[in-house]
Amino acid sequence: MRAAITRAGALTIEEVPEPVPRAGQLLVRTLACGICGSDLHALGDPEAFTDVMRRTGGTPHDIRNGLVLGHEFAAEIVDYGPGTVRTLPIGSTVCGPPIGFGPQGSGIIGYTPAFPGGFGEYMILSEAFTLPVPGGLDPKAAALTEPFSVAARAVRRAELAPKSVAVVLGLGPIGLGIVAVLKSRGHGPVVAVDFSPTRRALAERLGADLLIDPAVESPYDRWASLGVIPGMLDRMAAEYRGLPVTDAVLFECVGSPGMLARVVDGAPAGARIVLVGVCLRPDRIDPGLVAGKELDIRGSFGGSPAEYKQTLQAIADGRIDASALITGVTGLDGLGSAIAELAEPDRHAKIIVDPWLDRPAG
Amino acid sequence: MRAAITRAGALTIEEVPEPVPRAGQLLVRTLACGICGSDLHALGDPEAFTDVMRRTGGTPHDIRNGLVLGHEFAAEIVDYGPGTVRTLPIGSTVCGPPIGFGPQGSGIIGYTPAFPGGFGEYMILSEAFTLPVPGGLDPKAAALTEPFSVAARAVRRAELAPKSVAVVLGLGPIGLGIVAVLKSRGHGPVVAVDFSPTRRALAERLGADLLIDPAVESPYDRWASLGVIPGMLDRMAAEYRGLPVTDAVLFECVGSPGMLARVVDGAPAGARIVLVGVCLRPDRIDPGLVAGKELDIRGSFGGSPAEYKQTLQAIADGRIDASALITGVTGLDGLGSAIAELAEPDRHAKIIVDPWLDRPAG
Repeated sequence: MRAAITRAGALTIEEVPEPVPRAGQLLVRTLACGICGSDLHALGDPEAFTDVMRRTGGTPHDIRNGLVLGHEFAAEIVDYGPGTVRTLPIGSTVCGPPIGFGPQGSGIIGYTPAFPGGFGEYMILSEAFTLPVPGGLDPKAAALTEPFSVAARAVRRAELAPKSVAVVLGLGPIGLGIVAVLKSRGHGPVVAVDFSPTRRALAERLGADLLIDPAVESPYDRWASLGVIPGMLDRMAAEYRGLPVTDAVLFECVGSPGMLARVVDGAPAGARIVLVGVCLRPDRIDPGLVAGKELDIRGSFGGSPAEYKQTLQAIADGRIDASALITGVTGLDGLGSAIAELAEPDRHAKIIVDPWLDRPAG
Repeated sequence: MRAAITRAGALTIEEVPEPVPRAGQLLVRTLACGICGSDLHALGDPEAFTDVMRRTGGTPHDIRNGLVLGHEFAAEIVDYGPGTVRTLPIGSTVCGPPIGFGPQGSGIIGYTPAFPGGFGEYMILSEAFTLPVPGGLDPKAAALTEPFSVAARAVRRAELAPKSVAVVLGLGPIGLGIVAVLKSRGHGPVVAVDFSPTRRALAERLGADLLIDPAVESPYDRWASLGVIPGMLDRMAAEYRGLPVTDAVLFECVGSPGMLARVVDGAPAGARIVLVGVCLRPDRIDPGLVAGKELDIRGSFGGSPAEYKQTLQAIADGRIDASALITGVTGLDGLGSAIAELAEPDRHAKIIVDPWLDRPAG
């Protein structure tokens, strides 16, 4: 099959053997696969990426060589391996969380040679985690169930109260996904923050209640007007008097060094900060502010199979407009330039790879 | 009255005017007041202390000059101010959380000139937060309700499941208090970690199930034997298979720079890290580990009036042995050397100040 393979940290398009489904697995033909920010990190900073994977207890592989990336996929069933239930007919369109289990071990699809990702023509999936794409749903939108399920998990980790003020910092696909998930559940107010007017316009389309350009206004100057008490002593005084207190939840979806330090400084007392942005480099933090303002900093990683399933249904029902994020489609030959273009936030949000799009004839 | 006053960052013993109770307040005679690690920070690093207070939305005062410190107190009612209910008779022994409210504004008792602390002969308290010390309880033990209520709040912030593994890092008074609170509620296992054999012995006396000397063994090498899955992928695999997963909660009670970074590195996937140690200096953190291991870092500050009240009852009932922490008593003249001695963890845990102990005759 044709696939984009990492070779010395770059991508080359090669003919490689088709993967073979083993017990409990199925062979699928890739229909659509989103390019994720994590893929950009894996290509751009493989040493740091590998280091973080190792230290979180993932099984790190050589990211720089021999990997087929791509973990936001929709695909068509081609064949079943041994020991499968085969509920879905051959030819069905499917998707699923990027979790590979099987005789070859477990791992994240697209980040281990055992489970090549969607930047190749064929993949193998674990039947236990494979879901049918509801009829009529575009496979490109179905592929984006993965990033939206990451957003859904981040929202779950936030444990918002009905009146919590949600502030989404950084409107990449995950930040936009969080806006969409929150608004699909009727949550408000949702404040969306990004330097890019294109990204803010996308957030508005997905229902954000308030848009902030941090070049013009600090998102941390708005607490009083949003009904949030910024200082710890004032908050304690209100609580001890039995007054209602509005919480703030900040979703950190930027993931650049220095960001967490700024969020901790700007967050109001009692805030929850959900870390979804993948920052591979150390950051500075003031533990005295975390303790003194009683902040919660909560990491969020991936999405569970249950979160994936609920998100797929929300996309199929039209509660989440996954297609809103899609700003481009490319074949494998255009993948390299697509990755370069994703560095420009005003140009693209999500580019979908269709590995069959530019297949040479014959 | 005689009081220890901060002057250019040091303490001098002076005769100063008695404070005057205003509306809703009472005048009390100090019986006992614990020396807290925060007092040591305020004296040792006043610039950083003031900076953190300002940035958490506290109202910072000049810590270096004119303050009577001391916020872990028990006292005797001398007089009531105007507009008070006067439920408790004059002469009653009382204590309470260090929260001052009134016409002079609000603030933390012992950290604002409006509410001088217990390192002086008299204090003024807000009647709304003043509690009677249950009959027979030593005022020195009652004074320690404050640090134990800080421990109780940290335990509440941890949201432990019945089988969570609790690891207490640093066995200063707050760390020991957390051990005591956890064991008073029947929680286990409680792992207590400190370099000092004296501190570990105190933790054992308070019921700790496992003692670790980090000079001999890393507390982060024990996860498997405690039934905790350290790595994120293995934890996810267990969750997706519906297997029971044991959480770890780490209480960071050391508060020295570099500590948080080590805890984040050593914590198992899904752990909660409760920050109670007052670290006034920035620390390094790896956001990629916080996200990738789905860690929660939760700050905890002070104790609420409700937590204080419950803790006082637990001490009075004998469920918490507050006296176990007391390793010394001093008058005001000995306060300076007592503070110096607290730097030696093998010698002292908690020193109680009785400002009347060494009052010159006449």
